[in-house]
Amino acid sequence: MNISGKAHTTIWYDDNTQQVEIIDQTLLPHCFRLVSLKTLDDFCYAISRMQVRGAPLIGITAAYGLALNLLHNRNTPVPALVQQSRERLLATRPTAVNLRWALDTMQQALLALPESQWPQAALATANQLRAQDIKTCAAIGGHGLKLIRSIAATKAKQQPLNILTHCNAGWLATVDWGTALAPIYKAHAEGLALHIWVDETRPRNQGASLTAWELQQQGIAHTVIADNTGGHLMQHGQVDLCIVGSDRTSANGDVCNKIGTYLKALAAHDNQVPFYVALPTSTIDWSLHDGVQNIPIEQRDPDEVTHISGLDKQGNITQVKLVADSPAANYAFDVTPARLISGLITEQGVFAANSTSLQQLQDLLTPDSEQP
Amino acid sequence: MNISGKAHTTIWYDDNTQQVEIIDQTLLPHCFRLVSLKTLDDFCYAISRMQVRGAPLIGITAAYGLALNLLHNRNTPVPALVQQSRERLLATRPTAVNLRWALDTMQQALLALPESQWPQAALATANQLRAQDIKTCAAIGGHGLKLIRSIAATKAKQQPLNILTHCNAGWLATVDWGTALAPIYKAHAEGLALHIWVDETRPRNQGASLTAWELQQQGIAHTVIADNTGGHLMQHGQVDLCIVGSDRTSANGDVCNKIGTYLKALAAHDNQVPFYVALPTSTIDWSLHDGVQNIPIEQRDPDEVTHISGLDKQGNITQVKLVADSPAANYAFDVTPARLISGLITEQGVFAANSTSLQQLQDLLTPDSEQP
Repeated sequence: MNISGKAHTTIWYDDNTQQVEIIDQTLLPHCFRLVSLKTLDDFCYAISRMQVRGAPLIGITAAYGLALNLLHNRNTPVPALVQQSRERLLATRPTAVNLRWALDTMQQALLALPESQWPQAALATANQLRAQDIKTCAAIGGHGLKLIRSIAATKAKQQPLNILTHCNAGWLATVDWGTALAPIYKAHAEGLALHIWVDETRPRNQGASLTAWELQQQGIAHTVIADNTGGHLMQHGQVDLCIVGSDRTSANGDVCNKIGTYLKALAAHDNQVPFYVALPTSTIDWSLHDGVQNIPIEQRDPDEVTHISGLDKQGNITQVKLVADSPAANYAFDVTPARLISGLITEQGVFAANSTSLQQLQDLLTPDSEQP
Repeated sequence: MNISGKAHTTIWYDDNTQQVEIIDQTLLPHCFRLVSLKTLDDFCYAISRMQVRGAPLIGITAAYGLALNLLHNRNTPVPALVQQSRERLLATRPTAVNLRWALDTMQQALLALPESQWPQAALATANQLRAQDIKTCAAIGGHGLKLIRSIAATKAKQQPLNILTHCNAGWLATVDWGTALAPIYKAHAEGLALHIWVDETRPRNQGASLTAWELQQQGIAHTVIADNTGGHLMQHGQVDLCIVGSDRTSANGDVCNKIGTYLKALAAHDNQVPFYVALPTSTIDWSLHDGVQNIPIEQRDPDEVTHISGLDKQGNITQVKLVADSPAANYAFDVTPARLISGLITEQGVFAANSTSLQQLQDLLTPDSEQP
């Protein structure tokens, strides 16, 4: 997607410098800065400090981290390096499913080859995962676009379609396109009139900082709102559709996503507003059949609630304290029950959020499936 | 209630200085400072800049504003002063119902008397309104206490009762006791074990700044959470009861309160958590029979969403900018439909949120009522 009118992705390998380039997302929206990653320390720091975030992007970053650790340490035995990379990278964000998935995929690809080929093969595999992520997100965008077209067709002419989104499931959370925002980018590209309500998404404000910035760079009309606002808007016909992302989806269609998603799904249900979740099938946890009860919820540092960063009057990024001497709690995710979800937009198409429909999706994904 | 262990109220007339003392609530929780009000300008500034806020407290402040304008301008004809006070004070917060109610009450009291007595009578009436507010809130506390006792009786021994509240409907929003927090203060005083979940309440953070500070000063266990969190907590049995305040309640029981209240009511309903609203009957708008459709919602300055104030590392209250170049919207209130409300805690007792039950309440309040 665009930054200052030029096409951009969130991560790429630079052949000349033999380094990986990322956008430091902790500085957005106030400052756009690229960071070069080379050592395993660089990669671990980038993930744990959330310079990169978003389930898909974390996975790709970890894959490159493993690859560059092999490429730049030619005198150390490669199995030891793989083991070291795995342990260090997995520890950066303990609950991120895609991190493990990406490292597992890398390891499987390497084990089929002689050790001498591992460094180059690791880089090639990381590049493939990156390309695959772009393809997956573009496909999610395509399937979501059909949905947006059909809802837009019900609106009066000249009235923009109002879409509400929570947190950031845009291209900054992936390599390109995003998940929840991919259909929006595709719809905007084909000239559909859109207006996006952007939940600021406390406590880390990924909506106000990242989603709003993405949409602004792409020239899509949008308005930032406090997380408290969506219910009122839906009650008064000001939201036609909700699309959010997902960090983990259980096999019965329960969706774990940024804290507060459940509240918006309740409001959508109460006001008959379609509520869709966009996700790559790699984030479905086929082993879980009750997401509400069984998906563990990460609790992060309470300082993320009691303190916040922004730009001060001198133009410096400054942290201020919001709470005096009170304790705070910081639950990072919640789980929206499948019954509140209108559908799951995946790279394979749109599926109902229930066990039967997701079983059909799983059959599609299984190589030896008898499904068409 | 207490500040640093000493009993305090939010507003009082000082006979010696002939001024009114208030707490500057814009500086809380970082700095506790009293402000003296004397001129009509002082009072208008205090209300419009939200040094005082909360429907009941705004009303009392306006009453004193009118009284002191009469007391300190003995050479101007009193009807002109009353008219001037009314116009200027009403313009400070255009949607505040209590402001008009307080000024109407003052005017009615004066019209029964010769003009020479108006200045002293205005002060006496303002003092009466202040005393009445304390009595009303204490009565709300008493009725809510019975409710808390009955829910606490269902908990296992030693387990504190978890109560969630939104925004600030504590003593800082009234003269003393508060509305939603009054039952909590009464329950704490009689030794019931409580823990309060405090919604930070974006965009103005009255929960994190005021409710948390009140509870901390009173020694009541509490935890500040992002507004996104309550649904997850209710889903997992961590909330036994919700109590919020109300800015305006329609005759069918719909409740207009701080934006985001509706989302918490939906979550409470979805998880069978009792959801109560505490309010003085003076905030019921008997002329409205469909609050969701007919209560107008104030939109405030979008800067309250895009900027926030807190304490910087040097200990100064500093404003930082959270959003880069995106527009924002700032809806201040929402309306919770009566069907989601377990009951209305008033100074007259607890009433069901429906037209029949509220008709009984209205009959009680009407002096010539035939009700017992």
